[in-house]
Amino acid sequence: MTWPHKDLLDVTQLSRADALEILRAAKSFQEINSRPVKKVPILKGKSVILFFAEPSTRTKTSFDVAGKRLSADTFSLAKSGSSLVKGESLKDTVLTLQAMKPDGIVMRHNMSGAAQFIAERLDCAVINAGDGWHAHPTQALLDAFTLTERWGGVEGKTVLILGDVAHSRVARSNVHLLRLLGANVRLCGPRTLMPHAVKSWNVPVFNDLDEAVRGVDAVMCLRLQLERQQAGLLPDVREYSRRYCMNMARLAKAARNCVVLHPGPINRGWEIASDLADAPESLILDQVSSGVDVRMALLHLYLTRKERKE
Amino acid sequence: MTWPHKDLLDVTQLSRADALEILRAAKSFQEINSRPVKKVPILKGKSVILFFAEPSTRTKTSFDVAGKRLSADTFSLAKSGSSLVKGESLKDTVLTLQAMKPDGIVMRHNMSGAAQFIAERLDCAVINAGDGWHAHPTQALLDAFTLTERWGGVEGKTVLILGDVAHSRVARSNVHLLRLLGANVRLCGPRTLMPHAVKSWNVPVFNDLDEAVRGVDAVMCLRLQLERQQAGLLPDVREYSRRYCMNMARLAKAARNCVVLHPGPINRGWEIASDLADAPESLILDQVSSGVDVRMALLHLYLTRKERKE
Amino acid sequence: MTWPHKDLLDVTQLSRADALEILRAAKSFQEINSRPVKKVPILKGKSVILFFAEPSTRTKTSFDVAGKRLSADTFSLAKSGSSLVKGESLKDTVLTLQAMKPDGIVMRHNMSGAAQFIAERLDCAVINAGDGWHAHPTQALLDAFTLTERWGGVEGKTVLILGDVAHSRVARSNVHLLRLLGANVRLCGPRTLMPHAVKSWNVPVFNDLDEAVRGVDAVMCLRLQLERQQAGLLPDVREYSRRYCMNMARLAKAARNCVVLHPGPINRGWEIASDLADAPESLILDQVSSGVDVRMALLHLYLTRKERKE
Repeated sequence: MTWPHKDLLDVTQLSRADALEILRAAKSFQEINSRPVKKVPILKGKSVILFFAEPSTRTKTSFDVAGKRLSADTFSLAKSGSSLVKGESLKDTVLTLQAMKPDGIVMRHNMSGAAQFIAERLDCAVINAGDGWHAHPTQALLDAFTLTERWGGVEGKTVLILGDVAHSRVARSNVHLLRLLGANVRLCGPRTLMPHAVKSWNVPVFNDLDEAVRGVDAVMCLRLQLERQQAGLLPDVREYSRRYCMNMARLAKAARNCVVLHPGPINRGWEIASDLADAPESLILDQVSSGVDVRMALLHLYLTRKERKE
Repeated sequence: MTWPHKDLLDVTQLSRADALEILRAAKSFQEINSRPVKKVPILKGKSVILFFAEPSTRTKTSFDVAGKRLSADTFSLAKSGSSLVKGESLKDTVLTLQAMKPDGIVMRHNMSGAAQFIAERLDCAVINAGDGWHAHPTQALLDAFTLTERWGGVEGKTVLILGDVAHSRVARSNVHLLRLLGANVRLCGPRTLMPHAVKSWNVPVFNDLDEAVRGVDAVMCLRLQLERQQAGLLPDVREYSRRYCMNMARLAKAARNCVVLHPGPINRGWEIASDLADAPESLILDQVSSGVDVRMALLHLYLTRKERKE
Repeated sequence: MTWPHKDLLDVTQLSRADALEILRAAKSFQEINSRPVKKVPILKGKSVILFFAEPSTRTKTSFDVAGKRLSADTFSLAKSGSSLVKGESLKDTVLTLQAMKPDGIVMRHNMSGAAQFIAERLDCAVINAGDGWHAHPTQALLDAFTLTERWGGVEGKTVLILGDVAHSRVARSNVHLLRLLGANVRLCGPRTLMPHAVKSWNVPVFNDLDEAVRGVDAVMCLRLQLERQQAGLLPDVREYSRRYCMNMARLAKAARNCVVLHPGPINRGWEIASDLADAPESLILDQVSSGVDVRMALLHLYLTRKERKE
């Protein structure tokens, strides 16, 4: 199969077949990541720039590990220490990076649409590692891979996305991808943290978590951003947690074998109870492992596309 | 040819033959950088420390890319996060670095003369990536390479260096190297931003840009440092830009096929008009690509010197 | 020999035979580090995460150099730029890192006991690169290696540890290891900078340096932490230096061929006179070189343990 996309900006670009191909490729890299020596020469001599204009441990390190396990050279650029502090425009920064002839640029930016803006101006592959509230396609793909590993597939399953949906790129990308793969999606959270246009999303929306969890196969907790409270969107954190923290009692109301996910970093006791985060039902660390598998698959598909076409 | 220099501190160390040898080597690495797999084993097992005591995207990443394409291991040290925050002297920091037995140290420092101070105390190769207002030899070499690529050679051409010459290591290194290679150099900028001793440089100095551009084959814009205004050396930025911003109208007064360079990061609309920065006459992104070619050449020449001597 | 330890948390875990095995291995890596090409494929395909929650030049770079010379991939995480800024717990950060399946984690933390806390929760090898005032085993091992190189062995020698013993993980680890290897240890410093329980350490304690140096074969200076003065533990720095700064005159009172060590970064003129730091009796830079040798030995022993067992 020749990979049809230059860039990964959002899961909305992917067909169902594309998404399944990524999950299949991730499975083969998962096998490599279970070996004592987890390195293959697939991207030997390729360069990947990791350009993170927002702080990140897990996503950046995950891509770095993925790149090096494929034998690529990786180059990390953070906002501090980059020319961005000298006031250079984003466009000029990335044109400069491209002139060094990397094979791919992985970027995170606090501005929705930044990845697309960049991708349109660059010849090399651009992989969106999160842009503002807009999209986080690699997170959605690793979540789908994690659930597929647990269930064999997500088709017909019901997934509840819980928390601050309005400001979550993780939620947006997951709603789309899960439905593309045949899952049912529900949302739950306080009215103030639901997107204005949520009706057009065409998914059931709940404000009462105890009601929302009934019968779901997975609960995907979102990270609570404390700055929302300052913006007046949250009553207070304790009240929020009482109503929307996922815990063992609520898990008991879900379907049998219901699992719990969280993109991390977690605030224990706020979005998810500490004991549940550590329970067998929690897939949080599986998500991290899946992240490396999926990102190896993506770097492979997007960076060797031209050669395989020839 | 056995490379005669342990360190690259300034272009003034180089003979014309040395400079041409570097440009020739850069040409061969340019070819490698046009391949799908841009990696050669020339520096396999060598270590290069990138010690940047001033922030930098392009120069540091350029050296990092250059080193890894030659299969060297690179180690980045920034001022923050280094022992410099604990008050250790520069001398002790570099002696410590040398004790780890790197093959080369690339350094940038805000103190003029820092690279020489270090080089005298170290056995390994030291490459100056910019020291204060003093010298930026790799920038001058990549500029010369960029112009050579465009013209076939710089001999007999006239290059105008425009802007804050007084505080520019880029200008100092370029004036010397361009003349060494047979080009004519002119300077243009407000009197307050010309070096005190500029008469001893023996190059024509202009204060009126419209006059200065007449007949030149290249305009090399310097970056405007906003802090100069606070120091009272600039009237105000708008006034400065009206008089000294390079633009299409002024380009029309230069020689046919005149090109424009800028070491970056650019302030669009201040030193260079935005449309000109993106025009075919702009070599700004060629400079970035040349940077990798030239730095691969330099790392090769300086780091394999001993072996080739034996 | 099958290496019996999963983690290196403190030298107190090591038997005398273990310590000697590490020094023997370091010797073989020292030979590799004297070659023109200082790289061996021992850890090819292995991943080492360098997680430094306190700033460090020498220790982090030393481990980075050691890892890459063994052909491992290294991943640097600093406190800033990591999820720690988002308030994630240390436990969750390291569980996340482990889920990416590294072969080892090297960590420095300002909290005594952090390395052990982590090691108990992780399956991969954890190497303590300094935790609070508690332990700095790799520093003690490189000091022992440096002295062994100079003397052939430390048995029967007398080593004076000088300065702020109370707040020094370097001192704690060195006292234990030197005695394990058969050396005699003395301490010297102002009463306010001696540990409360120093009597239980069972080593001679001096407050007068001129008396303490008599007959010693090595003086190990500790770094003076300026913040101690603010805490009221130091009279003033000038007075401290007059009484406790190691210098040539005091060296003359020690045993013939007495050597001087310092873990760095040094404050010249405070803990050690500038001329003595640069004298042949100073082993400060040998310590840095030994650091790479010893850390290569440790990464080798701890990261290939499982394979060699099978």
